Order: sequence, then structure tokens, then C-alpha cells
Amino acid sequence: MPANAQEDVTVEETEVYSDTLGSSEDEETAFLCRKASRTPVASNPADKLATFESLASKRDHEAFFRQCVDVLLKEAVFDGTSRKNKVLEFRQPEQLMREFDFEVGREGASHGELLNHLRDVIKFSVKTGHPYFVNQLFSSVDPYGLIGQLLTDCLNPSAYTYEVAPLIILMEETVLREMRQIVGWKNGDGDGIFCPGGSIANGYAISCARHYFNPDIKTKGLHGIKRPVLFTSEDAHYSIKKLASFLGLGTDNVHLVNTDSRGKMDPEHLETLVKKSIDDGCSPFMVSATAGTTVIGAFDPIDKLADICQKYNMWLHVDAAWGGGALVSHKHRQLLRGIERADSVTWNPHKLLTAPQQCSTFLLRHENLLSEAHSANAAYLFQKDKFYDTKFDTGDKHIQCGRRADVLKFWFMWKAKGTDGFENHIDKTFSNAEFFLNTIRNRPGFELVIPEPECTNICFWYLPESLRTDSQEELRRKIRDDEEFRLKLHAVAPKIKERMMKEGTMMVTYQTHKSKPNFFRIVFQNSGLDKNDMLHLVQEFERLGHDL
Amino acid sequence: MPANAQEDVTVEETEVYSDTLGSSEDEETAFLCRKASRTPVASNPADKLATFESLASKRDHEAFFRQCVDVLLKEAVFDGTSRKNKVLEFRQPEQLMREFDFEVGREGASHGELLNHLRDVIKFSVKTGHPYFVNQLFSSVDPYGLIGQLLTDCLNPSAYTYEVAPLIILMEETVLREMRQIVGWKNGDGDGIFCPGGSIANGYAISCARHYFNPDIKTKGLHGIKRPVLFTSEDAHYSIKKLASFLGLGTDNVHLVNTDSRGKMDPEHLETLVKKSIDDGCSPFMVSATAGTTVIGAFDPIDKLADICQKYNMWLHVDAAWGGGALVSHKHRQLLRGIERADSVTWNPHKLLTAPQQCSTFLLRHENLLSEAHSANAAYLFQKDKFYDTKFDTGDKHIQCGRRADVLKFWFMWKAKGTDGFENHIDKTFSNAEFFLNTIRNRPGFELVIPEPECTNICFWYLPESLRTDSQEELRRKIRDDEEFRLKLHAVAPKIKERMMKEGTMMVTYQTHKSKPNFFRIVFQNSGLDKNDMLHLVQEFERLGHDL
Repeated sequence: MPANAQEDVTVEETEVYSDTLGSSEDEETAFLCRKASRTPVASNPADKLATFESLASKRDHEAFFRQCVDVLLKEAVFDGTSRKNKVLEFRQPEQLMREFDFEVGREGASHGELLNHLRDVIKFSVKTGHPYFVNQLFSSVDPYGLIGQLLTDCLNPSAYTYEVAPLIILMEETVLREMRQIVGWKNGDGDGIFCPGGSIANGYAISCARHYFNPDIKTKGLHGIKRPVLFTSEDAHYSIKKLASFLGLGTDNVHLVNTDSRGKMDPEHLETLVKKSIDDGCSPFMVSATAGTTVIGAFDPIDKLADICQKYNMWLHVDAAWGGGALVSHKHRQLLRGIERADSVTWNPHKLLTAPQQCSTFLLRHENLLSEAHSANAAYLFQKDKFYDTKFDTGDKHIQCGRRADVLKFWFMWKAKGTDGFENHIDKTFSNAEFFLNTIRNRPGFELVIPEPECTNICFWYLPESLRTDSQEELRRKIRDDEEFRLKLHAVAPKIKERMMKEGTMMVTYQTHKSKPNFFRIVFQNSGLDKNDMLHLVQEFERLGHDL
Repeated sequence: MPANAQEDVTVEETEVYSDTLGSSEDEETAFLCRKASRTPVASNPADKLATFESLASKRDHEAFFRQCVDVLLKEAVFDGTSRKNKVLEFRQPEQLMREFDFEVGREGASHGELLNHLRDVIKFSVKTGHPYFVNQLFSSVDPYGLIGQLLTDCLNPSAYTYEVAPLIILMEETVLREMRQIVGWKNGDGDGIFCPGGSIANGYAISCARHYFNPDIKTKGLHGIKRPVLFTSEDAHYSIKKLASFLGLGTDNVHLVNTDSRGKMDPEHLETLVKKSIDDGCSPFMVSATAGTTVIGAFDPIDKLADICQKYNMWLHVDAAWGGGALVSHKHRQLLRGIERADSVTWNPHKLLTAPQQCSTFLLRHENLLSEAHSANAAYLFQKDKFYDTKFDTGDKHIQCGRRADVLKFWFMWKAKGTDGFENHIDKTFSNAEFFLNTIRNRPGFELVIPEPECTNICFWYLPESLRTDSQEELRRKIRDDEEFRLKLHAVAPKIKERMMKEGTMMVTYQTHKSKPNFFRIVFQNSGLDKNDMLHLVQEFERLGHDL
């Protein structure tokens, strides 16, 4: 700190940042010019002084906070998820840049201006809690999850030491143990963490698996060792490849196993690939099965994969980021039969169980391994001469340092609903999906891509009248073989998607899969939907697409 | 989905999960027994039905939501950060497990019970927004940041495609460009992302650097290539080693450069190590400088390190997770002189700028590299036949898939305060720290570890009367050489820490550093503090420690 640092706050308006760095004149000018062009400024200097401090004051902030809550509750939470209102107010990027005041400038805004900004943010945001946002593997703004988030925000913890986050640490242990119990591991023993998304959870799986077989990698790294390879299905989530690459293994060393017509990994092909990799001098160490694939919602045959892992001494990971929620249902958990044989599991409560973004867990059967693989023993944070048992300082087992307390909202939801509530939620959601499926199964204009889906993903083509055929047999032949027809069909989904987004009436995603032309994947997690909604969604496809 | 799935919600109370998996009887019993022992159950079945659905309803949830907001505002935000109240209500882990109802069971809770849970969570949480929580490199519950969090929660976006998060994507581009501009990169050009914590941001830096020099690693992995090594100082954050290990490079290949007495990296030693690694047949590819070290708050001499990186063709990363906030201050940004020569920068607005947890950015000068290093081109998410420009689907450049929209709260704070507000915040915080420093500099019982700190970290020993000496010279000699004295002094900080936590009057961390006995590091980010607070904190050390 320079000796002449002044105590009082001063703002030297005429000085520019780049002065002190000796940058070029161009940069100075550029910086000076980057002032919000549309933000009116707070003209009262007292207003500005009140806002720069990071401590909330009842006098200055309570009324404003309550005004914001009023706007948020009305416009985002209730109106934003009302069937009477749009899912989104679409703007092309350049339009949105004109209509919304993005720029941040030197001067602050008044509370009135901030309320307008708040309203604008809500207006132009996609309402992911809207019943007709059925576009991704997450949706809903769960009321209890939302309160849990707000609680987290008001406390602003960071989950690494017992000292700083005592409640969070013990809550994580409780919730993770309960989840492991539900997975089927004896007494819920093992370990786990909440982490920022399923991709990173899958990264942990790879990291733990390789550490399990070769702990020297932690210090020595990967070069110079026998090439480690892992296996996942061609329908698995892209994060397996992405994280294998990030972890230095290389995408080429992720071998993709064929899936069958229902999207399930073929165990025989897996074994063939494992044998081949051994013949090639590689070191196969892990299979990542998927419980609920991203597009089709398929569940890999975990039991058979476990047999192969046992035979070849490989780690079995189950990426149940999407399908994990089904474990709380007596009716549907058989989809994950065999999961208790896994070494590790990714399970995202923010998907099927509609916890708010983000709520992902990495669970494993092995105790201590997370810590052994990742600990760095930083002396400044994980002191050993504390006056409480430092086994509760769990932060060194993850790759983050500071970490948002994602457990709190999920715990609050769980308290509110109970496991019974989660089960009701899952059963209703699956029931909705089945109703939707049965509604379109023989309906003119709809053709199922996967006739017997396992999860709440329903994949289908919508056929405008111009593309309909006399028989389903002919249709299937054309989809398979008729290149001209295939091109036309391929263009339908993007067109319907454009219409639905511009009208804002619903959001459903489309994609190709293997050689199939573009098709829709509608996907359900929001248990606030009912059969009328299913019928509405079906009719909305017809309204938007019949004339194409 | 099984053909016999029923449409209506049913709960079969007598069935146990493990039945369908054929697990052992023990497990069944264990699962059945894991019912919350202390949670009273909601006895009205209608209550239960209202709570399991994931859609918020005005009728069922508005009043409860407002009750929760009342409790949160009063007990967490205002009372929780009042100087009249405690920073924490300490309990040993086993006590807390008795006093707080952690268990999640089959049955849900009533709104009344949930309000009590909410209150208990607040009661037993450390108040990180309290003025006397000066324990970590984060603190404060910034009022505008908090509103921004709530806004994020009510909208629940995931930041990967323009389709789903149009506003967030453009907001990230705006804010990141502004931050790059402040770093000093011409026109703010380059790239960047918001990511979950500075550790992962540092991981991105390593990943981008190695991809820049050897793009084949993405597909082929690390084994079989010349051993890549990187350099950081012995005072750098542990995440460099941790992430290098996660990325498959191995901690042994992170070479630690000596720091001087002020904690700054020694450029000559760096060059010696680089040369040696080349002689050893390694491939040096990166230097990670630190701008604001974790304990001492030192700033590495970036300009000199940039010269060395240029000479040996290495990537220069600056971990400014902590110190980055100083860039917004005309007075203090000279601490980071040379940062505009870096290839990449980690900068966490959740630290010095008090954005809520988490708000971390990874910024880089190079366009496209993030995407080249990390993209997986998943066809289901990043379709190329969309009706808007898909360059705005930025999600494939990061290693997460779903990603919390951390930009929104920071943008809202920036709108509220303006860059001027941030500057006032930083200048006041540095001024507070300087006042604290000057207060203890010659005060009996205090001895500075670092007499001229650069950041808002002040490191000092507190000496109980029993350990005081006649002269400062004698004291320094004893701290250096007198083993018995050193052991006594080493035991002081943990004792004072125990007292302060049990009384709950403040939180300040302690640690060792190199051969130094335990000392305190007090650290300021909360600009709501003033000089009276500084005096209070000094006196609190005296009150707690003088008699030891």
C-alpha cells in the first residue's frame, strides 16, 4: 500500500485508467467512450454514496428490496409461469442489443432506474419455469427451491470449512448420505460432493477412477504411462469426452460403444472394444454408463456393464445426471437396476427433481478417494490446530476452493416435500409423459422416433400435411430411404421451432440423431403440468406446423 | 416407460425401494428407518398435495414466500449484519447435529415448520455479511448483488445457448468486454467466461495455454509428449497445483518459484528454473503470476515476468482472483502494472468487489481459443440450422454444460454503483486497511509480519502480555530464533481464534507461512466498515488475547 494513500474517498473524474499503465492514446479514448449510452445517471451525489457500500442498511435498502420482491414475484414467478403468458419474448441478438440497456458505465443508477432494469431483464428472459418450457433437461422454478436459493443468497456462504459453513458441511453429509442410501449403497456409506454441474461431476468420476488405479498420476502426470482408455456409449453426454480431454486423456481415448435401436449401450460391443484396447497395449480403466441419455432418455443395462467391469477390473461410473431422479420412485427406479454396483454416480437434482440451477452431485462408494485424489493441504485454509475436529473441513476434496452452497435449496425442498413428495413428483411427471406419448402414438401428423421411450423424453417427428403418407409403413420407408423426403422433413423442425419461438407459445428442442432427420424431443420435469397441458402441447404442434 | 404405468399418483407406503433392486434385508430396514426423527409431519393430506408440484402458485405460495422474505430480511440480512449481533453462534459438530434438524425423511413439512427450519438455518450460519467477518477473501452481502441473485433465482436460467438465455449471453459479452477493457486489452477484445470459482478459472488458463502450444493434446492426450511444465510462486494459490493435477499434468510438473520477503515472485529464480527445465528435457509452457496472494496479498512483478515469458515463448497467466478488483481504482491499479501483457487473467468479482458467491471470471486476450480447446459440438444443443446467428450459442467453449448465470448479479451491481461506485468501494476498503495497519504498527502487543503490505490483507502477530519483550529488536530475534518462544507464540493464534469463535464477536483467520509461527491475517473487502470498526477490531484482539 503506498505511503501516501488517502483515507477519504476521492474520484478523479478526469484521470483515465490507462494513464497509470502507460497505454496508448487509442485505448484511453476507447475507455472514456465506453459509457452507457442509455442509462440515465443518478444526479444526487448522496444517492451515489449510499449505493457504493457493500453493507445492506435497513434505511437505504429495505423498501427497495421489497419493491424488487414485488416485481419479481408478480412478473417473474407468477405471471412468468402463467399459461396465459408467453414463454419468451423473442428478439434477434441485434434487436435485443438495441432494446435492452446492457452497457455498464462509470455512473450508477437510481432505484427507480434499477427497477426498470429489473423489469426489462424479466421481460426479455426465457421463462424456464413456464409449463410450456419443455426444451431442456431442466425446467420449473420450484417454490421451495426458490426459497432455498434466497436463503443461500442472504447468507452467502462458501462451502469449504466447518468454521465458515458449519451447517452447510453437515447438511451436505446428511443429504449425500441419504442419496447414497437411495442409490443402494449399504448404510449410505461412501463419499460425495455437490459440484457445479453434471459435466464436472463426470470429470470427478474420471479423476477418481484413474487415481484409484494409478495414484502416481496425481504427482507425476499422464505422460510416460500406458495409454489409459475409457468407454462410454455413442449416445452418452458430450461431457465425458470434454472432461476426458480437459483431464489430459484426450478425446481419442474415449471409445464410443454402439447403442441399440432404443439408445442403450451394447454390452457385447463394449467387451469387444475393451479386448481390442488391451490388444493395442492400452490400459482400459473405466466405463461410463448412462442412466437417461440426453436425447432419447435411454438407460444403459447397468448390471451387464457391471459384469464386464468386474471381469476386466474397470471402474463403473453411472452418469444418472438426468435419470437419477427416478430412483426416488418405487415404480420407476427399476430403470436403474444395478446402479448399486457402480463405483460412482452423477445425479443432478436440478434435472428430474427440479431443484434450482445448479444442483449436481457426484457420489461414490469409496471413502477417502475424493480427498486422496484432489487434496492439496493448503496450510492457510485447512489448518490442523483448530479447536474442532478438522475432518469436517471437507473443502480439500474438491477442485474448487470457494464453492456455492448448492445443498441448501435441495435440502429445503426435501424438508418441504419429503421423499414422498419427490416420489409423487416423479410419478406424475412420468405419467404426463406417458399420456403425451399415447396421445401422439397414432395421431395423424406424428411419428415416434422411439416408440417405447424409458424416461420422460418423447422423441417424434411432426409431419405437415404436405409430407403425410397413406400408410405408416410408407412413411417409415421414406424417412429411412427417400433422400428428397428426408431433406424436406429435416427442414420442418427448425421451421416450427422458429415459429414457436417468435410467437413465444412454447419451447421444445429438436436435433438429429445418428442418420435421422431433425426431430423434436419434448421433455418433462415440471409436475405442475397436467393432461390438459399435454393435449395443448400436441395441438400447438399442429397449429404451428400443419401448413408447412 | 412400462406399458402398465398408471396415470394417477399413487404412493405405496409399504413398499421399499430396495425391493425392486433385490438388495439385502439389512438395506431395506436401514432405508425404512431413515426417517426424520425430529420433523413433525404435515397431517393434512391436502397440504402434502399442494407442496409436491414444481410450479409455484399464487394461492399456495405467495403468502409463504413473503413470510420467508420477512424472516430473511430481518434475521439474515439486517440483524445478521448488525454490529450489535454476533458473527456466529458456534456449536461443535456433534452439538449442532443435536440442535439442528438435518434429517430428510419421507414426509414433508408444513409451512410453519419450514419457517422454523429457515430461522434455524439463519441462527446457526456464520454471517459472512457481518462487518466483523474478516476471515476470508470474500465477505459482505451486497444489497444490489443480493437483488441480482434473487433475480437470477426467479428466472433460473442456464447459460449455454442464446435460445434459452438470450439476455444472459449478451450480458456476459458486455460485462466481460468491459472487464477486458479495464485489464487494458485494446478495445476489450479477446474472450472470457464466468466460471464457478477462481480455481476452475486457473484450470482454464492451464488448459488454454497447453492447447495454444500443442492443440493435439485435446484429442491425443498428454502421454507420449515431452513433459510440459509450468511455473508459479511458492505463495501462489493451491489451485494451480490442484488443477494441474486434475488436468493430468501432475503436481511435480508445477515448479515453485521463490518469493522475496514481501511475498513477490523472484524473476531471476524463475528464469533459473525455466532454464533448468529445458536442460532437463522438459517443455516449459506457462507462468502463472499472482496479483494478490492469498495470505500476504503480494503482487508479483508482472512486467518482469512478461519479459521472461516473451523470451522463452511461454504463456503468461495472471491469477488476479483476489487483487483484480484493484483494477477499477485509479489509485491502486498500478499494483497490477503490466497485466495488459498477460495472455489470460483470473478475476473474481466475488472477492474485492463483493459480488455474491460465486462470481469468477476467466479472461483471455486470444479469441476463439477457449472454444478451440473445449468445444465438443454436441448436435443436440448447438444445432447449426437455427434461425438466429449461432455464434451467440457460447456454451460450447466451457467445460460445464448447464451453467448458473453468475453474470446477472454482477451486472446489476455494476448498474447500481457504476464503475465510480466500485472505485469508491475499493478506495475506501484500501483506506480502511491502511488505517488498521497504522493503528497496530507501533501499538504494544502487535507485530507486523509484513510491514508494508500491498493489498488489504494485514498479517500480524498478537502478543499476550506474557510474551512481550523490552524492544522490538529482541522480539524479532525471538520470533526468528528462539524455539521455545516460537512454540508459545505459535499457540496464541489458535487460542484467540477459539475464544473469538466461541464468543462469536469476530472472525479472523490465522496460518503459518514459510517458517513463521501462526499469525493472523485480517482482510478487508466490506466497504461498509469504517475507522471505528478498525479500532474495534484492534481492541477485540487485545480483549481476547492479552491474558494468554
